[in-house]
Amino acid sequence: MSSTVGQVIKCKAAVAWEAGKPLVIEEVEVAPPQAQEVRLKIHYTSLCHTDVYFWEAKGQTPLFPRIFGHEAGGIVESVGEGVTDLAPGDHVLPVFTGECRQCAHCKSPDSNMCDLLRINPDRGVMIGDGQARFSKDGKPIYHFLGTSTFSQYTVVHVGCVAKINPSAPLDKACVVSCGISTGYGACVNVAKPPKGSSVAVFGLGAVGLAAAEGAKASGASRIIGVDLNASRFELAKKFGVTEFVNPADHKKPVQEVIAEMTNGGVDRSIECTGNVKAMISAFECVHDGWGVAVLVGVPNKDDEFKTHPMNFLNERTLKGTFYGNYKPRTDIPGVVEKYLNKELELEKFITHTVPFSDINKAFDLMLKGEGLRCIIKMDD
Amino acid sequence: MSSTVGQVIKCKAAVAWEAGKPLVIEEVEVAPPQAQEVRLKIHYTSLCHTDVYFWEAKGQTPLFPRIFGHEAGGIVESVGEGVTDLAPGDHVLPVFTGECRQCAHCKSPDSNMCDLLRINPDRGVMIGDGQARFSKDGKPIYHFLGTSTFSQYTVVHVGCVAKINPSAPLDKACVVSCGISTGYGACVNVAKPPKGSSVAVFGLGAVGLAAAEGAKASGASRIIGVDLNASRFELAKKFGVTEFVNPADHKKPVQEVIAEMTNGGVDRSIECTGNVKAMISAFECVHDGWGVAVLVGVPNKDDEFKTHPMNFLNERTLKGTFYGNYKPRTDIPGVVEKYLNKELELEKFITHTVPFSDINKAFDLMLKGEGLRCIIKMDD
Repeated sequence: MSSTVGQVIKCKAAVAWEAGKPLVIEEVEVAPPQAQEVRLKIHYTSLCHTDVYFWEAKGQTPLFPRIFGHEAGGIVESVGEGVTDLAPGDHVLPVFTGECRQCAHCKSPDSNMCDLLRINPDRGVMIGDGQARFSKDGKPIYHFLGTSTFSQYTVVHVGCVAKINPSAPLDKACVVSCGISTGYGACVNVAKPPKGSSVAVFGLGAVGLAAAEGAKASGASRIIGVDLNASRFELAKKFGVTEFVNPADHKKPVQEVIAEMTNGGVDRSIECTGNVKAMISAFECVHDGWGVAVLVGVPNKDDEFKTHPMNFLNERTLKGTFYGNYKPRTDIPGVVEKYLNKELELEKFITHTVPFSDINKAFDLMLKGEGLRCIIKMDD
Repeated sequence: MSSTVGQVIKCKAAVAWEAGKPLVIEEVEVAPPQAQEVRLKIHYTSLCHTDVYFWEAKGQTPLFPRIFGHEAGGIVESVGEGVTDLAPGDHVLPVFTGECRQCAHCKSPDSNMCDLLRINPDRGVMIGDGQARFSKDGKPIYHFLGTSTFSQYTVVHVGCVAKINPSAPLDKACVVSCGISTGYGACVNVAKPPKGSSVAVFGLGAVGLAAAEGAKASGASRIIGVDLNASRFELAKKFGVTEFVNPADHKKPVQEVIAEMTNGGVDRSIECTGNVKAMISAFECVHDGWGVAVLVGVPNKDDEFKTHPMNFLNERTLKGTFYGNYKPRTDIPGVVEKYLNKELELEKFITHTVPFSDINKAFDLMLKGEGLRCIIKMDD
């Protein structure tokens, strides 16, 4: 048993004191886990767009000081009252959304939108008692997405923790905890491209490339990458993308360009940008009769999706997905197994690694659109 | 062999000489079927909204004189060159859309939108030679939807003919040829409500009630009928509708009323009105996580479907269907078998019967919104 059990742990955390300002590595206090909570030692975390989006706090209610981070791998340090599924020493991925296993969503085979633990970016405290587990000089520091992995220790609800095979290296497996699963699952669980089919992927960041990887694994014969950033096209080939369309190169709408390339439209499309115009293009570029478009990217608050209803009547399907339709506790361990079985290569998503002390460099890289995933080593 | 084979047949047809004016029973000439065509003796036809819509010719390019009618049952009189699937004496349903069995749509298990024979209300001639087979006093009379069943004899492309079990009475089976299959198929082939699920049906005409019948057959436990015409609610009970919502009775949008009735939304919804506001309501009233909305009703040319994209991201699905996703030649004979096996009751859809000479009464009934299907006996 660790000597820290039941004790407050002092450790380093990267605190966001203000919106858009560089994070500051501080010594913080992490309270012990309460009922249905676990305390994790985070070994590796990576940076995802969602962290940057809420750190910038444009158009949202700002909540500071806060510890961001939600894509990570760690080991259970201690467990709170009533936790029976996890024990100290378990290798885990914290997840930004949860699975209570009791609600209608958790009981449905189709949904992963748990009523109790569904993602809530506005909440900065634990769901059990409405308190933060982080503090500095006696003042609370708020949580983010129930994970706050930019800290060497964090406290997470047991329903937001996936227990994984301990033989999986955490510096690779950590990327499964958000972006890669979101894109890969959107393809293999929702779009389900048949063997030999054509797939368009809008947005060639980590999520979109994970979707392309899913299309390749499904046996798609054409994978058309769509992105305004032409510098992404070369890297995308590694993920199975066979053709590229830069909407800026065309006068006509990109859905028309794709329809011409594919004799009427692609069999599947997957939208990973969150831009509402791209969503409309992604829907309208699928073939009538059988085309399925899947929305992954998160839109802005005031966006409106518009199309002529005949586009539906002509037997197109539009679906949205959240976290690739994976149930965090039930399904995510299986994604890690795919990595261990060499069915899913994680290494190529990891383009940078920085020590924890340089966490702001990871933000700089993402803001510049460079690379895919930057791993942050929490021990350094 | 009939003595009429290869000959022009003179028979009665109800001719629409002008948009919106009563049909006139005329003696017309019906030319023999050409390659890949069959000539049918129509025994019973029924009236569908689509006939009325194009007869009114509001907002479409008018094409007159024309013989309307597309929901019917008949017997093959003779066949043209190259027809091997059908022979004189076969009992058939002509269908307003076709199945060539050669194109990508026909080869796809998901589509019924045949490239060659897909519905085309603007075409008034046969696809083979661009000519009409109907004439009067040497002048052509245009076809409608490739069927023109308001005539005692008609010529139809072989790909638009479903050969059915001859033991099925044509005065009942005729309604399978359009509306009933459209609604029933939208439910059982596309919405696929699980046993015990809740289903909302928008529009309680024949198509909507056929969708409700499909929901009942699928074991849905709650079937919520939505219609602005409260007089339809009583009849709808016969089709399994368990609850009713009249949007005019509520100040809040009907999707909110339904969400409140169902703890967050129905499992499935089926839109059978073609009104774009109803389409939006039908989509937004399904439960997040697993809800599926299916659009059946045909919108106006300038309609726009609008919704917040988060409604998709929260794992809702929106699909459109055409003719209940049935392939006319392959699947429709099976729907008639369901009737013969007493799995699908057709009689309750038939509320009126008139002799051919009174065909304009069928139009009057539909314009008044009375009843469901009016059968027209072609011999009278």
